[in-house]
Amino acid sequence: MLEELKKRVYEANMLLPKYQLVTFTWGNVSEYDPETGLFAIKPSGVEYDKLRPEDMVLVNLAGEKVEGRYNPSSDTATHAVLYQRFAEKGILGVVHTHSPFATSWAQAGLSIPCYGTTHADYFYGDIPCVRNLTPEEIEEAYEKNTGIVIADEFELLGKDPVAVPGALFKNHGVFTWGKDAHEAVHNAVVVEECAKMAAWTKLINPSVQEAPQAMQDKHYFRKHGAGAYYGQKEE
Amino acid sequence: MLEELKKRVYEANMLLPKYQLVTFTWGNVSEYDPETGLFAIKPSGVEYDKLRPEDMVLVNLAGEKVEGRYNPSSDTATHAVLYQRFAEKGILGVVHTHSPFATSWAQAGLSIPCYGTTHADYFYGDIPCVRNLTPEEIEEAYEKNTGIVIADEFELLGKDPVAVPGALFKNHGVFTWGKDAHEAVHNAVVVEECAKMAAWTKLINPSVQEAPQAMQDKHYFRKHGAGAYYGQKEE
Amino acid sequence: MLEELKKRVYEANMLLPKYQLVTFTWGNVSEYDPETGLFAIKPSGVEYDKLRPEDMVLVNLAGEKVEGRYNPSSDTATHAVLYQRFAEKGILGVVHTHSPFATSWAQAGLSIPCYGTTHADYFYGDIPCVRNLTPEEIEEAYEKNTGIVIADEFELLGKDPVAVPGALFKNHGVFTWGKDAHEAVHNAVVVEECAKMAAWTKLINPSVQEAPQAMQDKHYFRKHGAGAYYGQKEE
Amino acid sequence: MLEELKKRVYEANMLLPKYQLVTFTWGNVSEYDPETGLFAIKPSGVEYDKLRPEDMVLVNLAGEKVEGRYNPSSDTATHAVLYQRFAEKGILGVVHTHSPFATSWAQAGLSIPCYGTTHADYFYGDIPCVRNLTPEEIEEAYEKNTGIVIADEFELLGKDPVAVPGALFKNHGVFTWGKDAHEAVHNAVVVEECAKMAAWTKLINPSVQEAPQAMQDKHYFRKHGAGAYYGQKEE
Repeated sequence: MLEELKKRVYEANMLLPKYQLVTFTWGNVSEYDPETGLFAIKPSGVEYDKLRPEDMVLVNLAGEKVEGRYNPSSDTATHAVLYQRFAEKGILGVVHTHSPFATSWAQAGLSIPCYGTTHADYFYGDIPCVRNLTPEEIEEAYEKNTGIVIADEFELLGKDPVAVPGALFKNHGVFTWGKDAHEAVHNAVVVEECAKMAAWTKLINPSVQEAPQAMQDKHYFRKHGAGAYYGQKEE
Repeated sequence: MLEELKKRVYEANMLLPKYQLVTFTWGNVSEYDPETGLFAIKPSGVEYDKLRPEDMVLVNLAGEKVEGRYNPSSDTATHAVLYQRFAEKGILGVVHTHSPFATSWAQAGLSIPCYGTTHADYFYGDIPCVRNLTPEEIEEAYEKNTGIVIADEFELLGKDPVAVPGALFKNHGVFTWGKDAHEAVHNAVVVEECAKMAAWTKLINPSVQEAPQAMQDKHYFRKHGAGAYYGQKEE
Repeated sequence: MLEELKKRVYEANMLLPKYQLVTFTWGNVSEYDPETGLFAIKPSGVEYDKLRPEDMVLVNLAGEKVEGRYNPSSDTATHAVLYQRFAEKGILGVVHTHSPFATSWAQAGLSIPCYGTTHADYFYGDIPCVRNLTPEEIEEAYEKNTGIVIADEFELLGKDPVAVPGALFKNHGVFTWGKDAHEAVHNAVVVEECAKMAAWTKLINPSVQEAPQAMQDKHYFRKHGAGAYYGQKEE
Repeated sequence: MLEELKKRVYEANMLLPKYQLVTFTWGNVSEYDPETGLFAIKPSGVEYDKLRPEDMVLVNLAGEKVEGRYNPSSDTATHAVLYQRFAEKGILGVVHTHSPFATSWAQAGLSIPCYGTTHADYFYGDIPCVRNLTPEEIEEAYEKNTGIVIADEFELLGKDPVAVPGALFKNHGVFTWGKDAHEAVHNAVVVEECAKMAAWTKLINPSVQEAPQAMQDKHYFRKHGAGAYYGQKEE
């Protein structure tokens, strides 16, 4: 069932190697279908060039496999929590990668500051690096608690996951999301590009400051919300 | 009308992904036709692999669309101002990109010093990073004022836009120009290449100085002006 | 003889240029067959695009050529020692490269710290940079002593080569290994990717610390050992 | 005449874009024929994808064009001087590029130290960065004096151009050479690769030292001279 969903999730997964966001199988994409309460996700550890649409695994919001010959991604429980917490805001696609520049910021334990309009066009404010898990949280339920920490930190920081469609996870990698799997992948590309330029920006000027707030506002709101005028009117 | 112009502008736009200057739709090229007072420019937010010559939008120097089924690039008003101010010097092509190394210098808020002959072959002196806009300028007319600040800063600094065919815009990206759309793209490649090498140069030797003026003069003037002897005689 | 082994070693060698781990002929892969006591290895200095399966050279554990029209890789004696010392632990594939980020760490004389889960998924603890050879060791038997120093340092540091499937050799390059030639190449890709991200991590945050031990343990053991649950059950 | 020479020089020039050593027309290769006293060189400013073997220009050691429909490379006089000074040592191929990492070292004004065996396999000791020209030398004969400074600096430093087959030119770029055009290109790739790793090595460990002399000797002499044992015996 949900063959169309699986096809979209398959195609979105195949964009990860196309955009050079993954090495081997180090990434996964899912999309949630609110009507059935299920999401389709990449199987664990299967190589991209052997993947087929019908290999996508269907999982419920408790993280249990409902259909599929393979085990779902080992990060499935994180995806499930993000849908539990964010789906009501229209977030129906989630991506996890170890894309190299973004992961380097995650390993450095630092949020990516908004240094320019490339970033401000997609993310309102910095791309937060959330804390890593305590030994107890790891022991209890590693992947599930990874999702809980992301959602909790967004609440704590007062960040709207629609306006900040992604986060770094300290010492680990990147999670991004969007209205569907395709947009979540698009945001994963944006995070990697912003992470790359932010690293080089610090190399060029170690005392660099964030872009002025007025410029961040202008670029974010010319693409998002009621006053947006970027792109073509959707019909 | 102006089908030849649209074709040239289409082809110049397609060079941006070829030279890896753009991710997604983050760039645009235009060319101005002095006879009609119109320029052709890429439509806003349309992906490069779906672009066709007939999708180019015709715009007048007031930045108003004259012909085309799409909205023009959201940066159209910046292009319009640059033609208003620079076309009389023979500058008939303009490019905007967020190419990563050049944008990193823009985010760092620093002009690219002339560290060597690669730079001096194309740009006489540094590639300036112009100031970003005040909240009032953003509010009043963001894209138009972006063009005005570039042109004003060139006047203020006494820089000839023919000898310095491009600028960084602080916290934003790159604008380059040339005698036509193709040359403007060529200069966008040069800026990215010089930005890359200048960043690495600083990494290798943090106390590096600019190239000697005599060397800058030699390389610039062996390719430009009455005494040039690089390349083949044009017939 | 051992045509299947030669074919596997040929294919594993061809992965080095595919994964951009080698320039010219700067790398080699071998695989050991415990039944015959022989290993197949790339011939010395033959370009990858001219290589054929039948060009692989068969060598015994004393490092002597047993079959083949070419000389074996100049690093053959190092491979031989690693099989002498590590084969009983199931290590039957060895790779040597000068992949650029890993070699830069080797040139810097520093082990690659475990900054995140990408590294912890494959290497338990840091990727050690072993000491370089004394003039006497170089003079006596350079390539053989290279292998001896690697194996001795692992003993000295109490590192299990199965849990730490590779090492940097100071001022030289990288050696990785695995249960076969293919897995050894896989680990060579991992080392290069971790080396790249570790360098950028230091650039972004010069005072970065290693990932917490609980996180290193979690990621290593969810992929290795009795409690592993990553990937698909092998049938 | 010399159609075989032109073909070899054409093919060697085409390797520059293949190995990503050039942007646009920023590079050139020549090869000298001692019998006729002529060398073939790339024409000036002609794009690589339009180049044909018959476009190569024949030039004598005074730097004068002898045959060809195009002007020779603007760097022709530098090539001529290098053949005048180095041909008697068997150096019959010369390459000039602005390859980005090597040019960054040249812009930084620093020689590339020998940090490891990748470098030592090809260059004995550091890759020197020679001084830039005085205003008088530039004025008098820029390209010719560029060659003279390289050759003079090698004499002054006591460096053998056969053992050190290339140099950086301060604030400019790279010149490499070899027994023919193809080997000179090979050395240009080596310089770029060593320049890249040396920059990263400094990033990873700012206080890094050169590789021990015994290791430099071992690697250089296992590939060069009477005791060499790398590769296959040439027949």
